[in-house]
Amino acid sequence: MILSQKARSISESLTLSIDAKAKRMKSEGCDVVGFGAGEPDFPTPDFIIQAAKEALDKGFTKYTPSSGTLQLKQAICRKLERENHIIYTPEEVIVSNGAKHSLYNILQTILNPGDEVIIPRPYWLSYPEMVRMADGISVFVDTREGDCFKVTADDLRKAVTPKTKALILNNPSNPNGCVYQEEELREIADLAVEKGFFLISDEIYEALVYDGRKHISIASLNDKVRALTFTVNGMSKAFAMTGWRIGYVAGPKEAIKVMGNIQSHSTSNPNSIAQYASTVALNAPRDCVRDMVCEFNKRRLYMTERIHSIRHLSCKKPEGAFYIMMNISRSFGKRHGNTLIHNSLSFSDALLESKMVTVVPGIAFGADSFVRLSYATSMDNIRKGLDRIEEFMNELV
Amino acid sequence: MILSQKARSISESLTLSIDAKAKRMKSEGCDVVGFGAGEPDFPTPDFIIQAAKEALDKGFTKYTPSSGTLQLKQAICRKLERENHIIYTPEEVIVSNGAKHSLYNILQTILNPGDEVIIPRPYWLSYPEMVRMADGISVFVDTREGDCFKVTADDLRKAVTPKTKALILNNPSNPNGCVYQEEELREIADLAVEKGFFLISDEIYEALVYDGRKHISIASLNDKVRALTFTVNGMSKAFAMTGWRIGYVAGPKEAIKVMGNIQSHSTSNPNSIAQYASTVALNAPRDCVRDMVCEFNKRRLYMTERIHSIRHLSCKKPEGAFYIMMNISRSFGKRHGNTLIHNSLSFSDALLESKMVTVVPGIAFGADSFVRLSYATSMDNIRKGLDRIEEFMNELV
Repeated sequence: MILSQKARSISESLTLSIDAKAKRMKSEGCDVVGFGAGEPDFPTPDFIIQAAKEALDKGFTKYTPSSGTLQLKQAICRKLERENHIIYTPEEVIVSNGAKHSLYNILQTILNPGDEVIIPRPYWLSYPEMVRMADGISVFVDTREGDCFKVTADDLRKAVTPKTKALILNNPSNPNGCVYQEEELREIADLAVEKGFFLISDEIYEALVYDGRKHISIASLNDKVRALTFTVNGMSKAFAMTGWRIGYVAGPKEAIKVMGNIQSHSTSNPNSIAQYASTVALNAPRDCVRDMVCEFNKRRLYMTERIHSIRHLSCKKPEGAFYIMMNISRSFGKRHGNTLIHNSLSFSDALLESKMVTVVPGIAFGADSFVRLSYATSMDNIRKGLDRIEEFMNELV
Repeated sequence: MILSQKARSISESLTLSIDAKAKRMKSEGCDVVGFGAGEPDFPTPDFIIQAAKEALDKGFTKYTPSSGTLQLKQAICRKLERENHIIYTPEEVIVSNGAKHSLYNILQTILNPGDEVIIPRPYWLSYPEMVRMADGISVFVDTREGDCFKVTADDLRKAVTPKTKALILNNPSNPNGCVYQEEELREIADLAVEKGFFLISDEIYEALVYDGRKHISIASLNDKVRALTFTVNGMSKAFAMTGWRIGYVAGPKEAIKVMGNIQSHSTSNPNSIAQYASTVALNAPRDCVRDMVCEFNKRRLYMTERIHSIRHLSCKKPEGAFYIMMNISRSFGKRHGNTLIHNSLSFSDALLESKMVTVVPGIAFGADSFVRLSYATSMDNIRKGLDRIEEFMNELV
């Protein structure tokens, strides 16, 4: 039986599969050190756990409106006003099964076959697959490590065509860790307004910025850019709620309505208990987030320093999120035992096989000179893992 | 800005929107009697609530494999073997955000543009929208009230073309309440094998069959049909877990793998807490289900009898699920006050406006001579609602 050609062209999510492989090896008793994680290693804060139990006790286990409860939408609006300085009404908000689902629904809502979506490279690996699922075409714009992987309005201008429908901007970025400053965003916003394309602003890592930087939502810059922007966020990273699957979008009312129709026929409402708990989380003070950021920052500084001290390795100090793009290109052409290291995949494989350390090969993000290391893991693990990486690098000949 | 043409063609889920309207009117203090519900009016059984709390206490709040936990897949396999007499392995199972999401993912996985999907009419209203979202074409096959709305292999044979990719069979059926017997299924299965199309067997209402009938899974009939069948089910109806959003599919391994890829880039795993609780639910005895069926049956019998006693109304006694298709065609051409009743929409509107009773207009299911009444509501509500419907019918001139 012949399956959908498009569906067969969708690749497995590599980060999730590496994460699953590490979990499996661990469950088999291997002492694996995983730098693959895409989720905080902290538990969901207790007050959110308690809120979920309250939802269960109240019998809040029925269908909700398929686009999310009014209470949660209101909490999202208040959050976006308070923290992001954008005024949205509940009709401009839709809650989905995680921010990934929000992004998927946006692309399904705006793309006609052949429409182009600009994606700065290195990119989060689901973006191109989502564009393909919506019959769009990904147009990659390469960024430079020297610029902290930030795309510029000039770079983008060269990529815009009459078919350009949207730009996906991940700020702070996975896998780069870059954080855009106001002036940089303003130039990108002006270009979007001038050329008339949508901005899909994926802000899932907004809470995780360091060195006193400030996260800025591009939709907050002015009304013209607000009208073109989908502000995407969710509970996973800031509240350590990855498994709960609550993401949301605020954007143009007409598009949000169409997204709601799609969602009503494809998944219905996100989990009702998670919606209830998310409402409580968004309405609460941000103490739990601050503590988490503080811990991530320590790890970030330690890792950056360690990596620079290891032979043939380097990295930019990330400005946000919890990932480091480690430049491995100077190892290419060398051997570890019998294995020739010639790209990010052979590097990652050899490292896992010989040292039981998992990293994500940069090829997954369109950046084959790098591997991505997550610091969403304990200091002990980070030390042990980097010791092993150092050993591995010293063994290269 | 121009949105996706396809996305704009997707209509709002009418049953959900009517349900939302009734909830809103109620919250405004109106004494609305709703026959629109698509969910059991029972709470989620307490042992499932306790299991969810256990998940929360254990910190089971992280990403799971995007296609679902192994534990839940194993519980599903055991359930399908024990209750449905089909042997599946976990690699042939994927867990999604509700059975609706399972169906959506199947269609995304199997349809190429222009592929035809046969849908018996009256149908569950999301089927055609899902087919459209996957670039397929719905081919409707009309059924007859006199045959309890069951489609026959002969009906289907006339609709099969070289483009036929699948048949969606909802057994027991929403909105019809029909339950297929073994011989009827066998003929349909033989046709699918002969013509080589997929069977999408939506068995979400399997637990709800009456009068000693037995639910039969079409994939259990023989290996040839099993190889063509997607057996779809979920936790919503049998376990009163609508808000939790856990559905699943068992089917051909290659297709399940492709579905997993799609899911990994569009939503990731379903809610982890709900997965944990569903595992406990599926592994437990079915006492809670039996009690619920017993109560639904009382209502079913009462409603069928009452409807037959009301002027100009009739219905078939449903064999499964919790819906009645009430034939209103004899009211067409009559007036209620100033309102001419001429189709299911004008009937439903007039009834809501004058008597504050919500029913779902049959046009939503492609059956304009009917309205759908759900008996997933208390006996008191059913009595009150039918009293008002009787009053309404007696006022028709």
